[in-house]
Amino acid sequence: MTKWVYSFGDGSADGRAEMRNLLGGKGANLAEMSNLGIPVPPGFTITTELCTYYYENGETYPDDLKAEVDAALAKIEATMGAQFGSTENPLLVSVRSGARASMPGMMDTVLNLGLNDQTVLALARNSGDERFAYDSYRRFIQMFSNVVLDVDHHHFEELLEGMKAQKGYTFDTDLTSDDWKGLVKQYEGKVKEVLGKPFPQDPQEQLWGAIGAVFGSWMNQRAITYRRLHNIPADWGTAVNVQAMVFGNMGTDCATGVCFTRNPSTGDNHFYGEYLVNAQGEDVVAGIRTPQPLTLFEKEANKSDLPAMEEVMPPIYTELVAVRDKLEQHYTDMQDMEFTIQQNKLWMLQTRTGKRTAKAALKMAIDMCKEGLIDKAQAVSRVEPAQIDQLLHPMLDPKAEKSVLGKGLPASPGAACGKVVFSADEAEAWVERGEKVMLVRVETSPEDIGGMHVAEGIVTTRGGMTSHAAVVARGMGTPCVAGAGELRVDYKAKTLSAGDRVVREGEVITIDGTSGEVMVGEVAMIQPELTGDFADLMIWADEIRTLKVRANAETPLDAQTGRDFGCEGIGLCRTEHMFFDPQRINHVREMILSTSEAERRRALDKLLPYQRQDFVELFRIMEGLPLTIRLLDPPLHEFLPHTDADVAEVARLTGASAEEIKTRSGELHEFNPMLGHRGCRLGVTYPEIYEMQCRAIFEAACQVAKEGKKVEPEVMIPLVGVKKELDLLAEMTHRVAATVMESEGIEVEYLVGTMIELPRAALRAGEIAETAQFFSFGTNDLTQTTYGLSRDDAGGFLVTYQEKGVIEADPFVTIDQDGVGELVSLACERGRKTRADIKLGICGEHGGDPASVNFCHRVGLNYVSCSPYRVPIARLAAAQAALGVGAVASTA
Amino acid sequence: MTKWVYSFGDGSADGRAEMRNLLGGKGANLAEMSNLGIPVPPGFTITTELCTYYYENGETYPDDLKAEVDAALAKIEATMGAQFGSTENPLLVSVRSGARASMPGMMDTVLNLGLNDQTVLALARNSGDERFAYDSYRRFIQMFSNVVLDVDHHHFEELLEGMKAQKGYTFDTDLTSDDWKGLVKQYEGKVKEVLGKPFPQDPQEQLWGAIGAVFGSWMNQRAITYRRLHNIPADWGTAVNVQAMVFGNMGTDCATGVCFTRNPSTGDNHFYGEYLVNAQGEDVVAGIRTPQPLTLFEKEANKSDLPAMEEVMPPIYTELVAVRDKLEQHYTDMQDMEFTIQQNKLWMLQTRTGKRTAKAALKMAIDMCKEGLIDKAQAVSRVEPAQIDQLLHPMLDPKAEKSVLGKGLPASPGAACGKVVFSADEAEAWVERGEKVMLVRVETSPEDIGGMHVAEGIVTTRGGMTSHAAVVARGMGTPCVAGAGELRVDYKAKTLSAGDRVVREGEVITIDGTSGEVMVGEVAMIQPELTGDFADLMIWADEIRTLKVRANAETPLDAQTGRDFGCEGIGLCRTEHMFFDPQRINHVREMILSTSEAERRRALDKLLPYQRQDFVELFRIMEGLPLTIRLLDPPLHEFLPHTDADVAEVARLTGASAEEIKTRSGELHEFNPMLGHRGCRLGVTYPEIYEMQCRAIFEAACQVAKEGKKVEPEVMIPLVGVKKELDLLAEMTHRVAATVMESEGIEVEYLVGTMIELPRAALRAGEIAETAQFFSFGTNDLTQTTYGLSRDDAGGFLVTYQEKGVIEADPFVTIDQDGVGELVSLACERGRKTRADIKLGICGEHGGDPASVNFCHRVGLNYVSCSPYRVPIARLAAAQAALGVGAVASTA
Repeated sequence: MTKWVYSFGDGSADGRAEMRNLLGGKGANLAEMSNLGIPVPPGFTITTELCTYYYENGETYPDDLKAEVDAALAKIEATMGAQFGSTENPLLVSVRSGARASMPGMMDTVLNLGLNDQTVLALARNSGDERFAYDSYRRFIQMFSNVVLDVDHHHFEELLEGMKAQKGYTFDTDLTSDDWKGLVKQYEGKVKEVLGKPFPQDPQEQLWGAIGAVFGSWMNQRAITYRRLHNIPADWGTAVNVQAMVFGNMGTDCATGVCFTRNPSTGDNHFYGEYLVNAQGEDVVAGIRTPQPLTLFEKEANKSDLPAMEEVMPPIYTELVAVRDKLEQHYTDMQDMEFTIQQNKLWMLQTRTGKRTAKAALKMAIDMCKEGLIDKAQAVSRVEPAQIDQLLHPMLDPKAEKSVLGKGLPASPGAACGKVVFSADEAEAWVERGEKVMLVRVETSPEDIGGMHVAEGIVTTRGGMTSHAAVVARGMGTPCVAGAGELRVDYKAKTLSAGDRVVREGEVITIDGTSGEVMVGEVAMIQPELTGDFADLMIWADEIRTLKVRANAETPLDAQTGRDFGCEGIGLCRTEHMFFDPQRINHVREMILSTSEAERRRALDKLLPYQRQDFVELFRIMEGLPLTIRLLDPPLHEFLPHTDADVAEVARLTGASAEEIKTRSGELHEFNPMLGHRGCRLGVTYPEIYEMQCRAIFEAACQVAKEGKKVEPEVMIPLVGVKKELDLLAEMTHRVAATVMESEGIEVEYLVGTMIELPRAALRAGEIAETAQFFSFGTNDLTQTTYGLSRDDAGGFLVTYQEKGVIEADPFVTIDQDGVGELVSLACERGRKTRADIKLGICGEHGGDPASVNFCHRVGLNYVSCSPYRVPIARLAAAQAALGVGAVASTA
Repeated sequence: MTKWVYSFGDGSADGRAEMRNLLGGKGANLAEMSNLGIPVPPGFTITTELCTYYYENGETYPDDLKAEVDAALAKIEATMGAQFGSTENPLLVSVRSGARASMPGMMDTVLNLGLNDQTVLALARNSGDERFAYDSYRRFIQMFSNVVLDVDHHHFEELLEGMKAQKGYTFDTDLTSDDWKGLVKQYEGKVKEVLGKPFPQDPQEQLWGAIGAVFGSWMNQRAITYRRLHNIPADWGTAVNVQAMVFGNMGTDCATGVCFTRNPSTGDNHFYGEYLVNAQGEDVVAGIRTPQPLTLFEKEANKSDLPAMEEVMPPIYTELVAVRDKLEQHYTDMQDMEFTIQQNKLWMLQTRTGKRTAKAALKMAIDMCKEGLIDKAQAVSRVEPAQIDQLLHPMLDPKAEKSVLGKGLPASPGAACGKVVFSADEAEAWVERGEKVMLVRVETSPEDIGGMHVAEGIVTTRGGMTSHAAVVARGMGTPCVAGAGELRVDYKAKTLSAGDRVVREGEVITIDGTSGEVMVGEVAMIQPELTGDFADLMIWADEIRTLKVRANAETPLDAQTGRDFGCEGIGLCRTEHMFFDPQRINHVREMILSTSEAERRRALDKLLPYQRQDFVELFRIMEGLPLTIRLLDPPLHEFLPHTDADVAEVARLTGASAEEIKTRSGELHEFNPMLGHRGCRLGVTYPEIYEMQCRAIFEAACQVAKEGKKVEPEVMIPLVGVKKELDLLAEMTHRVAATVMESEGIEVEYLVGTMIELPRAALRAGEIAETAQFFSFGTNDLTQTTYGLSRDDAGGFLVTYQEKGVIEADPFVTIDQDGVGELVSLACERGRKTRADIKLGICGEHGGDPASVNFCHRVGLNYVSCSPYRVPIARLAAAQAALGVGAVASTA
């Protein structure tokens, strides 16, 4: 026979914490506390299986339910020494839903159930507070009528307002005991008027009405929508918890409070909390009265003049400390608890693992491990990788005052401040004369790289989380607020404004790239600390993880940052970023404006020494680690000037006429550059460009190898969709490598591989692996093509998509495991089938996203590569993935 | 023991036609003719297996080969009554390669093998023509030295030029017998000089040298490249054919010719051919002498004054007619034959199925079926679907003179002529006053639709086979030449020019959309004939095929054309095409410029009656057939004006300021519109647009249903990538349908489905099918996204890609079966697993491409949908697919 009802309370319980699926989260936890001998108001849980039964059987209950509920209710009565419906000592209960997954606010609750015209008298008598009793009763009538009887709130609110108007009251608190009593009569009359029958006085009828309403609420529209948005199956069902009411507001021997086993902001191992005497739980949270400190330690630390519970109620405080110790030992994690003291008796209402700041999470994990409470693996699991981003960048001092001008997307974390400039050229000029600048643009383009490099931070008013500004800023570790749509940039007037607040060029602003806020003036900051606990955690993570972590970097600075953050190679060196350097861009343009291969080769010859030197520096820094170099990827028109002034300048420098430059720009113009003449398509049509790049790579590799340093070049061909593209270009690469090594007289080992960033490449991975020695998943472009979604254009409607629950997360932030992910895993499988030892990695933005790192671990990649500043996040996420914990969510 | 050598000739053969893989195409066919008792110069074939053996065994032969070759050679000698190496009656042979698949010009051939300083004397004596003998000998020395001994041509050419200079000759034909004799000596001397040893005089040494060279040529660079380009596996190998030489140039009792069993241009059942007396095969083809007619019928038909073979050599002609009858009966198809008459003896050198014009293919198929030679299925297989395109459009009279201005892509078939205009507005204005116009543009955009509709033909100087102009023109059946890059349009001067030839506005040009030619002036045309043989073939095709064929159409005219061409419904009605109508475009713009939903709804209310009327007309025309209507697909900015003048006009009409219009345009601008805010993304963000469209569809359907006509609306949601997009919009569609049907008081059956045009949609087809009642594969966009290739931008490099053999066919023309195709078949499989009766179709441009239709049949689609003018092509291709014949090639 199925057991439908599980009792708890009085030092024992039928259930336990592991029975979450059957009892719901709330019920399971209450049972667990009971089993630990912790004082919990007694009650019982009707299982989620009953909910399933209910819906599978035309909304009816099994025959044996009633007897089980009666028995469980009798147990509560025995424990509380009170009887349900008694006019002497009535037992009141709450009836609450409790699903497997938390569904806050989605389902219904009824409190104070058991009150009627008779029991309310007993409550008034026993509490010695008639006003309290009738206030409770009118609340119960309103709540029950609304939830169970479907009588709308407004009926009751009108009556209350009528009473206040009649009496000339302003606040609810002005009502006297008699006023409430009168209102209860009016409420009862209204229910009878609306329903044609009186408000139920029989507590049993009330109880079964409430149980039915909770099960019914599982299928209400709000709950259905919530489940759709959060992918919760309807057949999970909800449990119902019926629990004795306890009151913290029955006098001065009553209190209520919340507490944490350790300090949730700092992580310090001090008992921490707040309480209020003669109050309800809501009062602590609502902030109407100022809560008092729990401990003397807190009282002193905050210089509070309010009495601490430790001094006011020493015996109960001692009891609470014992509960604290027991719960933290039992759950081996910091707990967030709620308690109520009714007439000098402590009742624990809830315990759950407490939320904490990044700093606290780190400290607690390390401390608890050192205390022997948890092991290293658990410590590593305890810190959210996404959270530690905060620890890697300067942050705003939370105590500092700030004047917020507007808000955008938190595009690249960290805080920064500087003087506002409106162009990349200005940024460079100002920095040259010793200023710290904040680059503010409508949007950025590859031409702005120089200015972006020298700026303290970047603000754009257009673009999303993967706009040019955002991607480049994250790569450089520069704080960035992107797409701040409320702000307006006027390039002519050189102003940044929000409404009528105007910031002029040269004025200081501060940005918080972690929250997206833009503030006027300088705001105080706290610098990051990467040693101590942080370093310990990273070492432990490295011991656990199997997935390697590389950095995306093309400058010596970025490469060095990557090494400092513990990267194990460079997974993506974007050679085109090197092309924008002022010394080179005009040779690049000369090359693009060439009308013959010979002319193009002459321009490329001028670029060769620069590229070689780039690689020499990177090989030196990355000594002993692999360096994956992607050959030219963007379409050529990205390198041509756009404004008339720039065109004139280029004309002057290259000797081409402005007309010629514009004509060439026009020829190169594309409707959809993302899907255009770029990547290996350039390599196929202009082989001399890739040839020059390969020559630079192998000449540099040979040079550094001769210095006695181990080099590991990996040449990566982008945007391959057809095996023959790669065949042609791999052949060329091997030819150049052989020629260079022969003339340099030294051999270096190297690999030739490809990006997998087009659905076709993923599908054809089996044959592509015949030629490719490694795959690097370019999940940015793979997401764009698989979804048919331009990341530069998606900002406008992705917000609506998230609001309407069409997608859960931005697929450019967290990899779309169901769609893009299937292509990735299919390509891994097919690639490995052809070449068992093929090296597999990912170099899209996703490489630094914890849920995506987890996915990469699960599909068996060898490494992820991400912005240098996200390397620690990826290391931690990889360790958690190896432990089988951490973020795994998908996007749609 | 493996048999390496297969003899043929003298009325029997070891092999036969089906042994193509073993004997190569040439060897198998020669064997087949021998078996039929047709006089073929005797010879033997060394098998492809020997080639494989050769390469697997370090380029050596098996021990038993020599004996087999000797025996086979002895057979030739016996048949020919001549001996290899004899100084009395020497046998000469040719040595040729012959692979399974034709590899024209890729491999080597040696003729006249067996000649040496002695046998040449016998040849001179027996032929009575010393000059002929020495000319043959010097050719043999040059050919053999080059192919077998690797002595370069130029050595011999220099000697020949030297001789001519010394003698004061201009032409080779000026050389006398003695001159050739002298040159042979010089050639022999040169070979000795280069190689250090004399030219081999031993015919056996010559023979084995040539055999080795043919096998060796299988691995030369040319052959390897050719195989790579055509996906021919290296292990197929080549065969070697050794065959007795026969000569048509030994005197007036000799001749050579080519003939066809039926007329290859008209298809008429008349023996047709040309011949030359005392000539070599090359002479007939080279056009140095005018070939003579074979038959008296031809002679009269062409009013030739040259004697026909029928009158000159009656007995041999009769013999040839018998061969003709035998071969056509045997192969049951029109044969293209080569023959040589040596001293009054007929030798057949080759037979193969003859190439033919579309018209001839059609006539022969129908005639042969009526004659009982083939059955209907064979008749249907005999006509290439791609070819019949020619029969559906007017074509240039092949006899007409033409002055070609330039050439572009054959973007939409058929010929047309008209007066040149340079804008869509001009086109409409000129047509209104009764002119026929040719619209000439750099490129077209959706705004030009009106002008494109009224033009006789369209020329663009930019864009590819799937550019806007090309796609729209094919849809309308209007001839179009696209991307004619040699031509230059000057909008200001109103001229079209090629070099210094200039065509002004109002001058007449003719275009041939089948060849891509643009001609000055009017060129005579032939009108298509769609009855008779054509109608018969279509009926037979329909009896065979299982795949249904629909048309893509949005205007009543297109829909009617589709029905006339036998479509079975409309598979794609693009509602946005209706938006460009002058009566509506400003309401559309008003809608786009709206700043609130209420304003947008007001503008949409004005559009509703127009849309409803569109659908009313289509439902009436398509009575009883399904009509798939795609809701709005393109991004909104496509509807906004681009030029200042247009902006001003729109400002005047909508009441918005020019500034506002430009600002809105700027806001809507996208970097990659293809991947932007379009398709169902518009439906999700502006639900009122799709609501209006659905209302129009269902109101129209109800109205026509009330007229007693059966309607079958299928509402199609474009660009779905995530199931929840479709859920939201399908819900909306069902809601609107229910509301409309209730208020109209009539029920109509309808379906709601989606395009599958994104890789993600294909991957998630299983869950999407929970909501979608049909899938229509939008293979244009699916190709763009799977390949990461914009069809508007790919023109520039796809040409290089085809040249370099990276891809075989344009993936926008023929579906990429390996990549895009895998997604299509995967989506079919997953969709059917969820919903067994899901309707599956395709509505991309590929629906009218025969190879793609074949693919669609194989993956089990229910229908293809294509331009109305391609419906007959698709019907035929579908029939061939059902028969398991026809084009199946892939692109990469």
